[in-house]
Amino acid sequence: MTPKVIKTIAAMRRQSRQWQREGRSIAFVPTMGFLHEGHLSLIRKGRELADVSVVSIYVNPTQFAPGEDLDKYPRDFERDIRLCAEEQVDVVFFPSNEEMYPGGYQTFVLNESLSDKLCGRTRPTHFKGVTTIVAKLFNIVDADYALFGRKDAQQALIIRNMARDLNFRTEIIVAPIVREPDGLAMSSRNKYLSPVQRQQALVLNESLRRVEALWREGERDLDRLKKEMATAIESRPECRVDYISFVDADTLENAGDDSKKILLALAVFVGNTRLIDNTLLQR
Amino acid sequence: MTPKVIKTIAAMRRQSRQWQREGRSIAFVPTMGFLHEGHLSLIRKGRELADVSVVSIYVNPTQFAPGEDLDKYPRDFERDIRLCAEEQVDVVFFPSNEEMYPGGYQTFVLNESLSDKLCGRTRPTHFKGVTTIVAKLFNIVDADYALFGRKDAQQALIIRNMARDLNFRTEIIVAPIVREPDGLAMSSRNKYLSPVQRQQALVLNESLRRVEALWREGERDLDRLKKEMATAIESRPECRVDYISFVDADTLENAGDDSKKILLALAVFVGNTRLIDNTLLQR
Repeated sequence: MTPKVIKTIAAMRRQSRQWQREGRSIAFVPTMGFLHEGHLSLIRKGRELADVSVVSIYVNPTQFAPGEDLDKYPRDFERDIRLCAEEQVDVVFFPSNEEMYPGGYQTFVLNESLSDKLCGRTRPTHFKGVTTIVAKLFNIVDADYALFGRKDAQQALIIRNMARDLNFRTEIIVAPIVREPDGLAMSSRNKYLSPVQRQQALVLNESLRRVEALWREGERDLDRLKKEMATAIESRPECRVDYISFVDADTLENAGDDSKKILLALAVFVGNTRLIDNTLLQR
Repeated sequence: MTPKVIKTIAAMRRQSRQWQREGRSIAFVPTMGFLHEGHLSLIRKGRELADVSVVSIYVNPTQFAPGEDLDKYPRDFERDIRLCAEEQVDVVFFPSNEEMYPGGYQTFVLNESLSDKLCGRTRPTHFKGVTTIVAKLFNIVDADYALFGRKDAQQALIIRNMARDLNFRTEIIVAPIVREPDGLAMSSRNKYLSPVQRQQALVLNESLRRVEALWREGERDLDRLKKEMATAIESRPECRVDYISFVDADTLENAGDDSKKILLALAVFVGNTRLIDNTLLQR
């Protein structure tokens, strides 16, 4: 069945209230549309957890800086709706910019500890946009569960901390990275890649797998591992490292000898397209 | 009947959920305790609007800067509970600092347009603390109505904008200033005043009434009005003007010829105690 498409905040709120009166639990997957298997895995997980499911499709302007890809960010609403129908999504929330950021908009939510690390170094205003739109969506949808992908590991951590700090009732679920058969992490931005770039982009996943193997063999010299990754990545003519970081998975501070769970995160420009990927290393 | 005192977020949330399941509407008055007639007027207004009422008592550390009066802010929990009992408050939410800001706290809510104006010039981090704690309390109490006093006009405006911008479901009600019989605006900080200071503090209200009278007579020279107020205030030896501002009541920008509703706001140090007051002037 085609999901109900709701475009106004008031109507979305009424829908959620009605479900709540009926005692039905709500799973929520916030997206920027152009859905891929990663999103669909979140939708499926949500349907296991709750009685009804809401997917928001909104390309949030406040998380893009001037010069980033806001205008060309890929969109295909009809295809998204078809995919949501196949996954038995109940409601697609699809608001306009005027609905979400009306004239005189002035309130923002900010994580002050983690927003300037990793991706925040290259995209200093990005996470403020993310926390702000997610706070808004949490208040509008008022879900029992909200699902995020681990591909955006920093985002997931920042949102988990936001939900805890600001006492949102919504429980945050973070689901594993979904990959293409050849290992490239699913991302709407993969669409930007030329065939040659698409091939070279495999080096993100390959270099993560290589470090995991070395880690299992006992290698603990993070500088050596990092150097090896950088060399592998930059050997592909289309690839340029934005960052490769071994950080504490909770604080995103540089991993030290006492870090039990290390997040190895990287961002790589493939041509003009910036891709991210990551893995967790346990000590 | 003595109100039920709830100290944990989880228990407060359960209480609100239960009321909601019973179809009962909730009025919420956030306070820092040491209740006075201003607070009680908000509680009464809340009881008119909703089925049940919650008062929070929490001296929020994040809205005080180092060197401000956090430690000596007046507290009298027993008296507050007695007053709440007289007003038939159902629940007093009385959390600890550890409950509200546990270790690792890192998420803040900020109004980026209005927080550095008026009181924000003297207290640059104050409103970030206010919006953060109010966002938290809104999520915890999940009320239908929240009530604020117009004495803190800038706070009320910032919170009204926050509720709209972040799509909180709670409706913001702003109630008139309550004054002592001699005209001094009610404030917990009035307790700090010596008898001499208490007498001289009347100049805040008197100078506002004087401007209102001149305004009714047609005076529109804001500089002249401001100068007259400053002279009157600083003629009292204990009083020193922090600011006197005529601003647009919605934007808090300096009032221009096109401002229809002007907020005349002032802050005055009386001894070491900083008092605020305000009035609205209609063109």
